[in-house]
Amino acid sequence: MSGDDAGGTDAPRPTLDGVIETGVYVDDLDRARAFYVDVLGMAVLLDTPRLLALSVGGRSVLLLFARGATSESLPTPGGMVPGHGASGVQHFAFAVGATSLDGWRAHLAARGVAIESEVRWPRGGTSLYVRDPDGHSVELMTPGLWAIY
Amino acid sequence: MSGDDAGGTDAPRPTLDGVIETGVYVDDLDRARAFYVDVLGMAVLLDTPRLLALSVGGRSVLLLFARGATSESLPTPGGMVPGHGASGVQHFAFAVGATSLDGWRAHLAARGVAIESEVRWPRGGTSLYVRDPDGHSVELMTPGLWAIY
Repeated sequence: MSGDDAGGTDAPRPTLDGVIETGVYVDDLDRARAFYVDVLGMAVLLDTPRLLALSVGGRSVLLLFARGATSESLPTPGGMVPGHGASGVQHFAFAVGATSLDGWRAHLAARGVAIESEVRWPRGGTSLYVRDPDGHSVELMTPGLWAIY
Repeated sequence: MSGDDAGGTDAPRPTLDGVIETGVYVDDLDRARAFYVDVLGMAVLLDTPRLLALSVGGRSVLLLFARGATSESLPTPGGMVPGHGASGVQHFAFAVGATSLDGWRAHLAARGVAIESEVRWPRGGTSLYVRDPDGHSVELMTPGLWAIY
């Protein structure tokens, strides 16, 4: 009715239900596993030479890709997985509980992970920033910053 | 009790509740907005020259960073936001409903977005792969592939 859709149909626009996979490129999967599994506590969903798929709180999947291993398309019985690959320092954030920051500070200190910075957001919420072994900027964020969180 | 934690405390390891922010680096924020907002239907949460923060289904935040604009640390009243920045082709996946793929195929075709590949996963679930204007590999995935989704 709005004329917003090309084609003149009245079909509603389909919707996205969230980000389910976040991909991060690392130089050494074992080193990254020591950080994300042993320190941050993620559970392994899939472990191949090409990638490590991790469950983040049973709600999201973090894909650690071995840098360079995914640049070509990958044929599978169910279809072709397109290639990709990035370099540099990525940023992503994990949701943590509103009262969890003292626990996280103690846990990270016990594991020898330095907190690079801490930010209190104007809307609410506080973030701790650490670096993973590849230098990616990893944020642990309590609720408040975003209207949806 | 397990001795797994350094420091000898019995404090439980704090937990992560999921990925809340996924960062993607783009060459042109306006061009990326046309894809993620106008085609995929995301809602704008924050719009600055440095980044565009988008709500994905009210559950996740996609951060589109202007490439090069985030490499330096950013002082804010609440603390310093560490720098980051990546190049190349990233991969990430959005969750879509189990019966939504016909709608997505029609919608993408109407908007002139080519489906690069389609994969049926052994565990269940089907993925459509498209490219965003920067060439990032964007996946729309129905439930089934992962034990948690």
